[in-house]
Amino acid sequence: MPAATPYQQLEQEFRRLHALRGALSLLRWDAAVMMPRGSADVRGEQIAALETECHAVLASPRLSRLLERARANEQGLEGWQRSNVRAMQRQRDHAIAMPPSLIARLAKAVARAESLWFEARRQGDFRVLAPALDEVVKLVRDRAAHLGRHLQMDPYDALLDAFAPGIQSAEFETLLTAISWRLPQLIDGAIERQAGRAPQPFEGRFTATRQRALCVEVMKAMGFPFDRGRLDESERPFTEGVPGDIRVTTHFDPADPFSGLLGALHETGQALYDQGVPAQWRDQPVGRDRGLALEEGLSLLLEMQVGRSPAFVAWIRPLVEKHLGVTGPAWTDDNILLRLLRVRRSLVRVDADELTYPVHIMVRYDLERQLLSGRLRVVDLAEAWNEAMQARFGRRPDDDVQGVLQDMHWAVGSFGYFPTYLLGSSIAAQLWESLREDCPGLDESIRRGEFSGLVSWLRENVHARGASLTAPGLLQEVTRKPLTAAAWLRYVERKYLETL
Amino acid sequence: MPAATPYQQLEQEFRRLHALRGALSLLRWDAAVMMPRGSADVRGEQIAALETECHAVLASPRLSRLLERARANEQGLEGWQRSNVRAMQRQRDHAIAMPPSLIARLAKAVARAESLWFEARRQGDFRVLAPALDEVVKLVRDRAAHLGRHLQMDPYDALLDAFAPGIQSAEFETLLTAISWRLPQLIDGAIERQAGRAPQPFEGRFTATRQRALCVEVMKAMGFPFDRGRLDESERPFTEGVPGDIRVTTHFDPADPFSGLLGALHETGQALYDQGVPAQWRDQPVGRDRGLALEEGLSLLLEMQVGRSPAFVAWIRPLVEKHLGVTGPAWTDDNILLRLLRVRRSLVRVDADELTYPVHIMVRYDLERQLLSGRLRVVDLAEAWNEAMQARFGRRPDDDVQGVLQDMHWAVGSFGYFPTYLLGSSIAAQLWESLREDCPGLDESIRRGEFSGLVSWLRENVHARGASLTAPGLLQEVTRKPLTAAAWLRYVERKYLETL
Repeated sequence: MPAATPYQQLEQEFRRLHALRGALSLLRWDAAVMMPRGSADVRGEQIAALETECHAVLASPRLSRLLERARANEQGLEGWQRSNVRAMQRQRDHAIAMPPSLIARLAKAVARAESLWFEARRQGDFRVLAPALDEVVKLVRDRAAHLGRHLQMDPYDALLDAFAPGIQSAEFETLLTAISWRLPQLIDGAIERQAGRAPQPFEGRFTATRQRALCVEVMKAMGFPFDRGRLDESERPFTEGVPGDIRVTTHFDPADPFSGLLGALHETGQALYDQGVPAQWRDQPVGRDRGLALEEGLSLLLEMQVGRSPAFVAWIRPLVEKHLGVTGPAWTDDNILLRLLRVRRSLVRVDADELTYPVHIMVRYDLERQLLSGRLRVVDLAEAWNEAMQARFGRRPDDDVQGVLQDMHWAVGSFGYFPTYLLGSSIAAQLWESLREDCPGLDESIRRGEFSGLVSWLRENVHARGASLTAPGLLQEVTRKPLTAAAWLRYVERKYLETL
Repeated sequence: MPAATPYQQLEQEFRRLHALRGALSLLRWDAAVMMPRGSADVRGEQIAALETECHAVLASPRLSRLLERARANEQGLEGWQRSNVRAMQRQRDHAIAMPPSLIARLAKAVARAESLWFEARRQGDFRVLAPALDEVVKLVRDRAAHLGRHLQMDPYDALLDAFAPGIQSAEFETLLTAISWRLPQLIDGAIERQAGRAPQPFEGRFTATRQRALCVEVMKAMGFPFDRGRLDESERPFTEGVPGDIRVTTHFDPADPFSGLLGALHETGQALYDQGVPAQWRDQPVGRDRGLALEEGLSLLLEMQVGRSPAFVAWIRPLVEKHLGVTGPAWTDDNILLRLLRVRRSLVRVDADELTYPVHIMVRYDLERQLLSGRLRVVDLAEAWNEAMQARFGRRPDDDVQGVLQDMHWAVGSFGYFPTYLLGSSIAAQLWESLREDCPGLDESIRRGEFSGLVSWLRENVHARGASLTAPGLLQEVTRKPLTAAAWLRYVERKYLETL
């Protein structure tokens, strides 16, 4: 057997890293779904130990040497292997950019801020969190400076790059500007159009068992592999696990069966992505590091473009009747659709509808940039938040829980994360336009519960590329257009001002 | 802050190891309880990666250096810390005794033999497994030789030491001889006494939900911490997890609610042990490495001495009625007890009763020693097994599945494991005698479902010592007698020839 090449040794190292990260992912899934309430301390130690191991793999001098040697011999590699080396390099660069002391201080500050976030919510008072959040902001600012220097980027762009590789804030702002220009009118128009047509409420309570059975039938129709995956319940929907063992969760609201179903659809979009990556890439960075914007795009495509469409509602209505045993005027196609497309100026992001959702992201993006640049002090954040909501929605939150304390992201140090939601919306809409062009009978298929055409298109055009392209690169190749907000604006205009 | 001492650095390393092993334990629990059927390949990779990390911690030159330095400065340590250093040294010695190439070959041979064990059972033919088992036996023989040389022990004793620290085969054989001397008569006597008094069968089918509720009520009464532990169902009962997050499983037989309950009791014995170790030892070897014989002893004490007693049956009968909704002549105290104490010469270990169980261990011990010494060839194992059963029970198994293929232990390389079951029985009985002397009203308490006296006694006399003593050392200290079979023989004689 000839000695392994540097590239082969790298694959081996990243295979090991993949296995360790898979273990980490299972620990997180278990913590949210199965773990006894009192065991968080023990789990925290296990997760920290595994994260340290993972970091050590990426930061090891041996890995850096192997990367140098592999890059010097790139001509011997196949195209996907070259992409793989780039993805490896990216992980290594992000890992070693921060000094270990800063990693440790940030981890400690985040643990403190996270627990104070819960406490502040309990007391309904942002001031409980403010000093700890201030510490997090300062350390994230350091982190951004280190990352930016190392990756030769603007500091904020370096944070964004960690979540959405290949997308910079300038591109995101172009998108934001285009949406801002049209959105106020679209929201006004939709609310006006829906005035006087309040949907009838769904009456009754629906057990998790029945709701789960409905979700399972829908997910099976979409090709979710239950022999290599699970659906469970947790506080908020999420996807964990690895290709080959995907763990999807959703949250069942006893009064609203669509909330759990659409959560499950959202996560199924990501799960199918995970399962659809070429088998030989599955444990390599080129198969995994696609970034949150792309993942969000595929999730939203199932939840929004598919799940909140007349064709989908026509298909699931009999399934809803069967599993939940409901019937009557609230359960017609029209009334269900009216519920799913209801536009309201909610002050809480996770309750927001598709059309007003971008407003929540705009507010957060603006505030987090101000915080990081130092233009806004943490002590003034709650008031700045309330003013921003007043300016956009004409109302101030009743208290901090409905305001600045509604999201945990900043407390846990996730700055540069919020843009991925909005990038995801634009990606979903732009892919959807191409998908509809390529699959002319799509609505009729969905109406019959047939998703093989849709999933095949995604497999071929998106899943199969893994992380070999950035999100904008993939969009350019698949849709032959740069990533913009145009498709999303066309999509919501049609959906909210014409169809309904 | 002064620099950490070598001992403190060791504690830190073992704390990390404890966290990694806790993660491993959760992966195993999940594989048996939650994992989708198709995901075993992925899980295997994750477990292998973590086991490699754990081995690397123990085998690192730095750890050996720290151990040397800590031992050179033992006078500065507290008693439990000195015990901790010994337990650390033991783990390190076991870890580095085998050359890495042998570890890898054994892991591969075991993986192969394990899958062929399933295939051989499917085909009902030991010959399917024999060549792979032969390879495992050869490698285990190498392993024993390496371990023995390194630990300065007889090779088989070194294997036994891995499972039952501080117990050698000579001690085990003394126990075995004493039991062999009396057991045939005891079995004959018990079967004769029970002749013509066949218990009435339990009729009905009992859902896992109802059986689980019964188990939970019983476990709560015994102090199982459900805020830091779970009870789930799996193919065979087991305990995984760590102190602070204990995962107990049992198996619910729809036709026999006592099988699941006694399985849960058995595992609760170990879970309470895990939870009862002093808090500051929990993530250290002195708190964890008590060996399987002691663990089995505490499990059997709850399952056998407590769970199959008239007092316990008197307490749970109304709970059984409540949770399972049963009543009638099969559900009297007497009939339940008759079922729980029924003695029969079963050819299958896991179906065996308390009294005939040792026979199964004797047969396996004898055969595994012959295999390892080379006196018995693997190709002749099935026939040797059948002859041994004929000699002990007067019957040959109908096929290999009921014979040599019934246990997976040897296929997965677990030689030296079977003795721990019998050691556990003797430990349980010997502790039980002392416990009854120290707690005079024990039967009355159990009859009322009060276990605090019993659990406190175990806490103080056993749990609190962790692994600071070996099993024989602990028995000597707690019962003021060496570990022998005498207490067990007295116990079964009274139970099967006098009480019933």
